Amino acid sequence: MTYENTWAAAYDVGLLAPGRVAAPAELATGDREFLQAMLDAEAALTRAQAELGLAPQRAADAVADAARAERFDVRDLAVRARAGGNPVIPLVADLTAAVPEDAKEYVHRGATSQDILDSAAMLVASRVLDLLVPELDSTAQGLGRLAATHRATPMPGRTLTQHAVPTTFGLKAAGWRALILDARDRLAAVRASLPAQLGGAAGTLAAFGAFAGPGEEPDLRLPSAYARQLGLADPQLPWHTLRTPVADLAGALAFAAGALGKVAADVLVLSRTEIGELAEGGGGGSSAMPHKANPVRSTLIAAAARRAPALAATLYGSVAAEDERPAGAWHAEWETLRELLRTVGGAARDAAELAAGLRVFPGRMRAHLDLTGGRIVTERLAAALSGPLGRTRAKRLLTKASANGLAAQFSWADLLYAEGLDEEAVAALDLADLTDPTHYTGAAAALTDRALTRR
Amino acid sequence: MTYENTWAAAYDVGLLAPGRVAAPAELATGDREFLQAMLDAEAALTRAQAELGLAPQRAADAVADAARAERFDVRDLAVRARAGGNPVIPLVADLTAAVPEDAKEYVHRGATSQDILDSAAMLVASRVLDLLVPELDSTAQGLGRLAATHRATPMPGRTLTQHAVPTTFGLKAAGWRALILDARDRLAAVRASLPAQLGGAAGTLAAFGAFAGPGEEPDLRLPSAYARQLGLADPQLPWHTLRTPVADLAGALAFAAGALGKVAADVLVLSRTEIGELAEGGGGGSSAMPHKANPVRSTLIAAAARRAPALAATLYGSVAAEDERPAGAWHAEWETLRELLRTVGGAARDAAELAAGLRVFPGRMRAHLDLTGGRIVTERLAAALSGPLGRTRAKRLLTKASANGLAAQFSWADLLYAEGLDEEAVAALDLADLTDPTHYTGAAAALTDRALTRR
Amino acid sequence: MTYENTWAAAYDVGLLAPGRVAAPAELATGDREFLQAMLDAEAALTRAQAELGLAPQRAADAVADAARAERFDVRDLAVRARAGGNPVIPLVADLTAAVPEDAKEYVHRGATSQDILDSAAMLVASRVLDLLVPELDSTAQGLGRLAATHRATPMPGRTLTQHAVPTTFGLKAAGWRALILDARDRLAAVRASLPAQLGGAAGTLAAFGAFAGPGEEPDLRLPSAYARQLGLADPQLPWHTLRTPVADLAGALAFAAGALGKVAADVLVLSRTEIGELAEGGGGGSSAMPHKANPVRSTLIAAAARRAPALAATLYGSVAAEDERPAGAWHAEWETLRELLRTVGGAARDAAELAAGLRVFPGRMRAHLDLTGGRIVTERLAAALSGPLGRTRAKRLLTKASANGLAAQFSWADLLYAEGLDEEAVAALDLADLTDPTHYTGAAAALTDRALTRR
Amino acid sequence: MTYENTWAAAYDVGLLAPGRVAAPAELATGDREFLQAMLDAEAALTRAQAELGLAPQRAADAVADAARAERFDVRDLAVRARAGGNPVIPLVADLTAAVPEDAKEYVHRGATSQDILDSAAMLVASRVLDLLVPELDSTAQGLGRLAATHRATPMPGRTLTQHAVPTTFGLKAAGWRALILDARDRLAAVRASLPAQLGGAAGTLAAFGAFAGPGEEPDLRLPSAYARQLGLADPQLPWHTLRTPVADLAGALAFAAGALGKVAADVLVLSRTEIGELAEGGGGGSSAMPHKANPVRSTLIAAAARRAPALAATLYGSVAAEDERPAGAWHAEWETLRELLRTVGGAARDAAELAAGLRVFPGRMRAHLDLTGGRIVTERLAAALSGPLGRTRAKRLLTKASANGLAAQFSWADLLYAEGLDEEAVAALDLADLTDPTHYTGAAAALTDRALTRR
Repeated sequence: MTYENTWAAAYDVGLLAPGRVAAPAELATGDREFLQAMLDAEAALTRAQAELGLAPQRAADAVADAARAERFDVRDLAVRARAGGNPVIPLVADLTAAVPEDAKEYVHRGATSQDILDSAAMLVASRVLDLLVPELDSTAQGLGRLAATHRATPMPGRTLTQHAVPTTFGLKAAGWRALILDARDRLAAVRASLPAQLGGAAGTLAAFGAFAGPGEEPDLRLPSAYARQLGLADPQLPWHTLRTPVADLAGALAFAAGALGKVAADVLVLSRTEIGELAEGGGGGSSAMPHKANPVRSTLIAAAARRAPALAATLYGSVAAEDERPAGAWHAEWETLRELLRTVGGAARDAAELAAGLRVFPGRMRAHLDLTGGRIVTERLAAALSGPLGRTRAKRLLTKASANGLAAQFSWADLLYAEGLDEEAVAALDLADLTDPTHYTGAAAALTDRALTRR
Repeated sequence: MTYENTWAAAYDVGLLAPGRVAAPAELATGDREFLQAMLDAEAALTRAQAELGLAPQRAADAVADAARAERFDVRDLAVRARAGGNPVIPLVADLTAAVPEDAKEYVHRGATSQDILDSAAMLVASRVLDLLVPELDSTAQGLGRLAATHRATPMPGRTLTQHAVPTTFGLKAAGWRALILDARDRLAAVRASLPAQLGGAAGTLAAFGAFAGPGEEPDLRLPSAYARQLGLADPQLPWHTLRTPVADLAGALAFAAGALGKVAADVLVLSRTEIGELAEGGGGGSSAMPHKANPVRSTLIAAAARRAPALAATLYGSVAAEDERPAGAWHAEWETLRELLRTVGGAARDAAELAAGLRVFPGRMRAHLDLTGGRIVTERLAAALSGPLGRTRAKRLLTKASANGLAAQFSWADLLYAEGLDEEAVAALDLADLTDPTHYTGAAAALTDRALTRR
Repeated sequence: MTYENTWAAAYDVGLLAPGRVAAPAELATGDREFLQAMLDAEAALTRAQAELGLAPQRAADAVADAARAERFDVRDLAVRARAGGNPVIPLVADLTAAVPEDAKEYVHRGATSQDILDSAAMLVASRVLDLLVPELDSTAQGLGRLAATHRATPMPGRTLTQHAVPTTFGLKAAGWRALILDARDRLAAVRASLPAQLGGAAGTLAAFGAFAGPGEEPDLRLPSAYARQLGLADPQLPWHTLRTPVADLAGALAFAAGALGKVAADVLVLSRTEIGELAEGGGGGSSAMPHKANPVRSTLIAAAARRAPALAATLYGSVAAEDERPAGAWHAEWETLRELLRTVGGAARDAAELAAGLRVFPGRMRAHLDLTGGRIVTERLAAALSGPLGRTRAKRLLTKASANGLAAQFSWADLLYAEGLDEEAVAALDLADLTDPTHYTGAAAALTDRALTRR
Repeated sequence: MTYENTWAAAYDVGLLAPGRVAAPAELATGDREFLQAMLDAEAALTRAQAELGLAPQRAADAVADAARAERFDVRDLAVRARAGGNPVIPLVADLTAAVPEDAKEYVHRGATSQDILDSAAMLVASRVLDLLVPELDSTAQGLGRLAATHRATPMPGRTLTQHAVPTTFGLKAAGWRALILDARDRLAAVRASLPAQLGGAAGTLAAFGAFAGPGEEPDLRLPSAYARQLGLADPQLPWHTLRTPVADLAGALAFAAGALGKVAADVLVLSRTEIGELAEGGGGGSSAMPHKANPVRSTLIAAAARRAPALAATLYGSVAAEDERPAGAWHAEWETLRELLRTVGGAARDAAELAAGLRVFPGRMRAHLDLTGGRIVTERLAAALSGPLGRTRAKRLLTKASANGLAAQFSWADLLYAEGLDEEAVAALDLADLTDPTHYTGAAAALTDRALTRR
């Protein structure tokens, strides 16, 4: 089979990936974009050397000029990468071939494959995070609007699938927003810390000294200049086997997936046919049933939230990397990190759409507060009755009443008389207020307001 | 951005995946191949219906004729899949458009998206396993040859990184082979059990009855005919949310990755510069160092072994799938399963090359048996001396001797005299035999022979 | 701090583990039970040697007599295990001290720590599986009764959280049962294959030969006798670094967790306050709300299903184990396997209770079929109308009608007249039948019956 | 079986856990310590209410007085926790029983189980981190000393298991230290952010208002007072389903495990019998072989590094938690988080011992630089020769020379003459310097010095 044929059989363009297809994060992470990032790293290296007088400016210009992904055959590079186990080896050959004779010796000079691949991964990651952070911000804004509008919209609080006590939709949306902002903050912090990688074959920078001339020490300004050229942070040490940046990405991305997944999990519950308190703006269709309006955005986010922790686990596992370049741990990172970036990036795109279009049905929420025939306020009644009745009798009354279906069958007043309370005591209780679930949302609105002060 | 542009930015052709690039398993799992499998499922469905008189043969022929992947635009399908969250919805539209008017109503008739996607996933999996099982067999053969040749080639057994007692390279290779055969057996069993999926919208097959005519019951022969058309097993129940087949794949593939990973882990250790008892047939080069011959095949296999367990974990996690189609658990399977198939398939390819080309250096193995100055046989000496000296004195002598560097400084005979043994007793011990590490390989050769009887 | 103190600070008796507390699987896996299994392995080894004349029967009797867990200080062993990194080293010392002088030299003779620890792990696993398999069987029986009773009880099929088409509760329960039987079959198969481990220091059995006398070959009947003594399978090779048995356990247990988790996931959905089609037999209480009846069994099963895949992933990761005993991969298995056995064992106990007590509310199921105002049968109508109207007009009518709320606002007959159908054609349709969701359960009952034939 | 019996069968005191046994982190995380933390949370709650006049000081004193773990039966609580699925429900009953009559109504007043369990988990986590952070600091100090001492001690840099170019042991140790400091910084940051949890049944704090009196709003100062009492951070929102703190712990702990695991991975390689450049201070023994001195500390750390990512994955997976309390996701956290804290805490203890006792053998390191017969400096020669010979000829010469065994067979001068270089040009090269591997450590020492300025 020729390369041409294997390309056709091998390519992945997202057929199985509706969660990320056409998302900005997908378009920033394709093989061509990754190749471009590797070329950017090669160009930055020669430019940094030129800046310090270690290479002629002409060579830097020539490399920069040649370093355009569309001039290279990605599949061919991929296939040739098998021999040495990484794509930089054939890329250096092709890039060298693409520059004029007098620039050839300055291509990749002093560097090792990992310098280029790791720097490219950080470039790609930084480009994805530059898309993700604003996307999360806009999602948070959408959720903030929902929270403000519904700060006092009562709905059932649900624990272990059962109605517990009332809450407000505003508080729920404020919680979503807080999680998203937590994710944004973590991703933004990681973004700012993503370092360039330059260490040479074993992290000593030795070859940069060797090329500078006999007896020359490596110039520690070179990694700094290189990092500056790439717009990445300048690390204190080459980090070829100190994988903090990759682990930080893993953690922040897995958390972001979970944060988005929390929103999706709630929307999926609350848009169930029987619940219908929420609906996605535009539901997805079905190949079989004309009427279906599925919560597709939430579904795809939920799928991402299921995948991200395992991808992150692989990356965390690669921190324990032996030697100056491990045989496997490093290679296991490449596809995993890209997949994690794409998956979370896609979920963020879906969440932004979800937040922008989410429909809220306060009437359904209100109606559901009555579903348990008053059981949703037993906690409040327990508190109120523990004064006049004492804790034990109050609890007995409420347990009996709950078992009997509460206000559905009895009036609260009758129940209290039956427990021996006199009329005055009953009157003092303001039962109408006590049993109104919309009056028992506690600090939901106040907490919402407080949470919305966060920027 | 147009589709054309997003394709170019999004595609993945294996630049980050030297472990699977151009492997048969990669070429059987690309988006186009997956699309073809979906089309195969659609064609099989119409053919099965024709077989039972539920559709005209003409329609079945028309669908089969149209169902060729190269006639569809994969990226366009992928992008349109976003709306409903799966690629079958736009595919049904395009396939319907591609058949003559009188066949249109028979396209996808009675089916749901999941029927097509799950059946396609099983088809793709079965095609990969049909490649994998022979590849593992050929790897096992290669390892079997090594085991037979080296059944009695002594080398250090190593535990917790330290020399323990001698073993033979044959026994090690026989162990590798046994693991690979275990993987083969598990994958072959899973292959035989992979089922077609047909259930309709909620697994009741109801629509197939509805299309058959008013009051018609669904014909239970239909799923069987469909499975037969696909060459897949005929399940007792639609398994849309009974994910045994996917879990079985997950387990067998994760195990296979581990089995291959064990071989790689040993080769990586034994080909270390300081050890050099093994070498890969063709080592990989370096972008920086002219002399490097890296164990690239083992490295890539090791990377696969690090990734597979996490991918399998995601699939196991999706077994707990709510309802008649879960919102997320199913979608999380698609890319994960494909990635797992590709990753393990790639590793199997590398392992076959590794086994075929592995170079063994018995001289180095022999030399290393002397590295500990005799410590590698202290277990044997402890057994032999416990007779004449008693266990306690024997142990004291060996501990002292070990601390002092054993035969490096002392003769064994002198040490034994110092413990009070008389000349006759010492002579009875045959110290030359007892301290020869090549004489202490136990049942290694016999176990090797026994293991090689397995087919 | 003394051992006494550290015991008190360190012990775990299940405070954080309501899912497994007091379950048979917990009581079979505590440290004392694990210690007993290690002692059983030591006793079996001496007995097997006595059987082959390699040790006096007296010694075998003495070891067996001493090998009772209650005679050893578990915490003390645990603490002393730190020095060598495994508990067998101090255990051998204490067991040797506990037997008469003339038996001492036969304790642990020829074995390595891993022989004892791995065999003990298999013993513990086999004991747990012997509990688990019948528990799953009894769960399957309970589910089978539910399936038979409700084979034709109609309820909404739900996909992506939305009503799809009708199904029956019997089919759902039959599916649960099928999954549980799949889990049972896989666990039973693994149970039968669990092997004893005997290989000596590096898997060559060499020391067994050395102790048999000068020039003696290891007797390959020894591992067989040992396996027979333990009631475990006799493997073809020592499997110290061929971890198939552990991986098989990992896969079968993770799958079982998922299978149980599927049941739990459905019960959690269907017992939601708004749905209430199912309820656990005895709901759990709350520390705050007198009225709560939580689906606690399902909740704890769901928690187990979330944990098991990650535990299994660690075990799969340990298959790639270097050398004759890996430095880390083996040690990572111990707690992980025990935790997985306990977690799944606990979930199986909860599932048996759940299946035995589950309450079904067919009235709620029936009522919910009307919730969508007829949308739940649009698939059927689409099929029925495609005859008289053609596919395109049928679909247009149904889409319009769905958007308008269907039979809620219009009579179907009126809608069809509006599409131009004449009275006769409408009459021919038997709209009462076509729009009755209880008449559209397809092959649900037949599939249920077929699935229940499986034993 | 009675509780007494089940305790005896169920307990875990670390028999399978030599990695954490008796470590400070183990002793801070046992069931009794967790129970104490729950009691601390209950006491803090009543004290906070007393502080705000919501409870009498007498009641706060009484609760604080009763809240001592040794007064409760942990196993009994664990077993009774099954009914409601969490241990707080029986604990509140027992604590209420343990206080005087007039204090009973103030026990757990207004709180929900999750308030107590989550706060307790944060207390336990904070106590572990307070132990871990100094332990990592002391490990870093030990590594810093090694780095300073060996800043210029040359050794082979190894990539993909093969010698690459020289580095220094100081740079390697400085890298270890940098990773450990990264872990310390992340854990310290998480420690400072660990929040108290107080929200009541659904996170609205409603019951606190209800108990304050009719019509009373919940006092938002209460959660702050409670957090202050606990010495934990005061969160902006109740975080019952906003699991940022648990995810932050997961990430920082998984990373710490990886960082420690990197050190262990390197020690394991470098203390291999054939390499012997490092040795653990006190090696572990063997149950079979008198001479073994195993790298036990590294082995146990490596095991922890293998387990932590999967445990973290479970915790990340629980971020996507539906409703106001999820049915499963929360429960899956409890044991997982505790296990992760223990595992990493144990590994940190081992690493501190490892760093304190590590033995370095510079002579072996030096000797190994000659193992490749000069190949380890081909990168340098390539640079030096590219001047006089040009890149192409230089590379040809080095490739040929590498294949032939380099200086082992030929003198470099002869090789260069053969390539046509004249005597003067050869003399100008200072071949003695160029081929001395100890002269090619690049910036290793300078980078070490720079890295050691970090505190």
